Amino acid sequence: MKKVSDIGEFDLIARIESILPKELPSDILIGPGDDTAVVLPDMDIVQLLTTDMQVENRHFKLEWIRPYSLGKRVISVNLSDIAAMGGNPAYALVSLCLPDHLTVEFFDQLIKGMRDQMSAHDAHIVGGNLSGGSDKLIVDITMIGTAQLGQTITRSSSKPGDRIFVTGSLGGGFGGFKVLEKFGLLYPDNFAPLVESYIKPIPRVSVGRELARSGIATSMIDLSDGLSGDLRHITDMSQVGAEIHLSKLPVHPALNNLAALTSSLPYEMALHGGDGYELLFTTSSDVSDDDIRELNARVDVKVTEIGRITDKENGLWLIGEEEERIALEGKGWDHFG
Amino acid sequence: MKKVSDIGEFDLIARIESILPKELPSDILIGPGDDTAVVLPDMDIVQLLTTDMQVENRHFKLEWIRPYSLGKRVISVNLSDIAAMGGNPAYALVSLCLPDHLTVEFFDQLIKGMRDQMSAHDAHIVGGNLSGGSDKLIVDITMIGTAQLGQTITRSSSKPGDRIFVTGSLGGGFGGFKVLEKFGLLYPDNFAPLVESYIKPIPRVSVGRELARSGIATSMIDLSDGLSGDLRHITDMSQVGAEIHLSKLPVHPALNNLAALTSSLPYEMALHGGDGYELLFTTSSDVSDDDIRELNARVDVKVTEIGRITDKENGLWLIGEEEERIALEGKGWDHFG
Repeated sequence: MKKVSDIGEFDLIARIESILPKELPSDILIGPGDDTAVVLPDMDIVQLLTTDMQVENRHFKLEWIRPYSLGKRVISVNLSDIAAMGGNPAYALVSLCLPDHLTVEFFDQLIKGMRDQMSAHDAHIVGGNLSGGSDKLIVDITMIGTAQLGQTITRSSSKPGDRIFVTGSLGGGFGGFKVLEKFGLLYPDNFAPLVESYIKPIPRVSVGRELARSGIATSMIDLSDGLSGDLRHITDMSQVGAEIHLSKLPVHPALNNLAALTSSLPYEMALHGGDGYELLFTTSSDVSDDDIRELNARVDVKVTEIGRITDKENGLWLIGEEEERIALEGKGWDHFG
Repeated sequence: MKKVSDIGEFDLIARIESILPKELPSDILIGPGDDTAVVLPDMDIVQLLTTDMQVENRHFKLEWIRPYSLGKRVISVNLSDIAAMGGNPAYALVSLCLPDHLTVEFFDQLIKGMRDQMSAHDAHIVGGNLSGGSDKLIVDITMIGTAQLGQTITRSSSKPGDRIFVTGSLGGGFGGFKVLEKFGLLYPDNFAPLVESYIKPIPRVSVGRELARSGIATSMIDLSDGLSGDLRHITDMSQVGAEIHLSKLPVHPALNNLAALTSSLPYEMALHGGDGYELLFTTSSDVSDDDIRELNARVDVKVTEIGRITDKENGLWLIGEEEERIALEGKGWDHFG
């Protein structure tokens, strides 16, 4: 089977061009192929700029994931950061470091996955870079999104008394990573929902946009580092404290199967496990249960209240099942850990 | 000495924050530290988006270059792509894959070099990403620049009859790479100018902007792949041919010293060697020698005419010292080669 090292950089670029859509929207004046892409920003918008690097054997293993799914996943991880600001994805630049042994078919499938996940959000790959020189596949995506001026939702503006919510369920992606680490693809069927969470995370772009449009969120972050770590990002940057309730956490149900195999309880994985791409957001205490029911009706994922923002002096606490207070360490997921 | 693996991702991010400027210009609404950076584009501008990945032992060796210079160099390589469109650099996102053995002092110096090279162009780092998981240092920069609508200089609009120019001298960066490969830092003094060209390439931002402002360039590219490869990018995308004259090439003078050590003649290194960040541009044949003299007076680097754009059917030719015609292969610098 042909390897990427057999055909050279220029031929690989030609393959990308044949895979990407021919028609570009009118705001992309120049797409891939020149020294830079050229885009024309709209008036009255701000741009959101983010980048995320995924490294073979650190963030994924090639034995675990098909290249098409990997392409979708690396795009989703970046879409999630745009979602966490309440933004609308627009453009991506794709940098790849390709090991020599990678097949051309793998390369094509990877690009197709990226293309399709971008298209699903009406967004476009506008450029990139290819390199060799590593024995591991490294995918670095830069994503550029847009938002209305004044509608971005940062990490730094939650206030004491604010209500804390998360989307979806927690710990699934982390659990899937652990399952794949233990079993590879030969995992028992009851772990399939966890593996699905890891392989195909759903970036919460539409929830993020709905929150930006409605103006009810005071702060927001995506849970890529895990709930405890990312909540700490919010409290650090907002200069506040927080209390969350163990009994309210929407722990991924399939984590019960995993507890016997790991030294962690399901709630611990939900609390500290990374590789999750749900959103955590806060709203003012004025926002009513009716407002939240309305939000839940408009979006495609369940939104669950898990606690309250407090004064900074209060610190960060997990309230246990018997109302005991457990100091919440922002362990999070550290890719150097 | 402390290693990056000793202190973890969040502490490294705190170090970056302490190194980067505290004051940001008013168009950067949110800099590093949130899910995404937020920037407010000006009206009537277009944005230039580009990315370039540099991999240890492929593009540089840590024995060759001090981390501060490496930081400046990786930024310069990206500035060069903005320059090649006639643009003005504005923002960068920095993705780093850090091997565990890297020291924290190295890390700090790398970031400081990036910061200073951005500041030298009134541009700012607005975000990034840190990862581990590779035994090699990988630096991936995304650079965003601006240009006036209608003033970007692409690769695709040269016409038969156009004059072809390059800035500066050719082959120095490639020569420096070869010198360092052969001698490491213990190179003979007469190779110092080549090493300087490789370690500290000068991105031709001011020339690029002057050409965009004056409107005299019909196409432009930077010579990162080498003259023969990059000229072919211009002729392919413009659907033209070209003839360049061997005797007119501004071959880097120090390449004479190198010829004895390599199997290549100086002009061959000037023609095919990569790691050069001069600009190649074309102008309409109406542009006079006086116009070029005026340009040369306004910019900080010499501009040299090297040939003419021809009909596509003519193909690509090097005209030798005795007027012999040598088919010009677009060998260029292929980082998979």
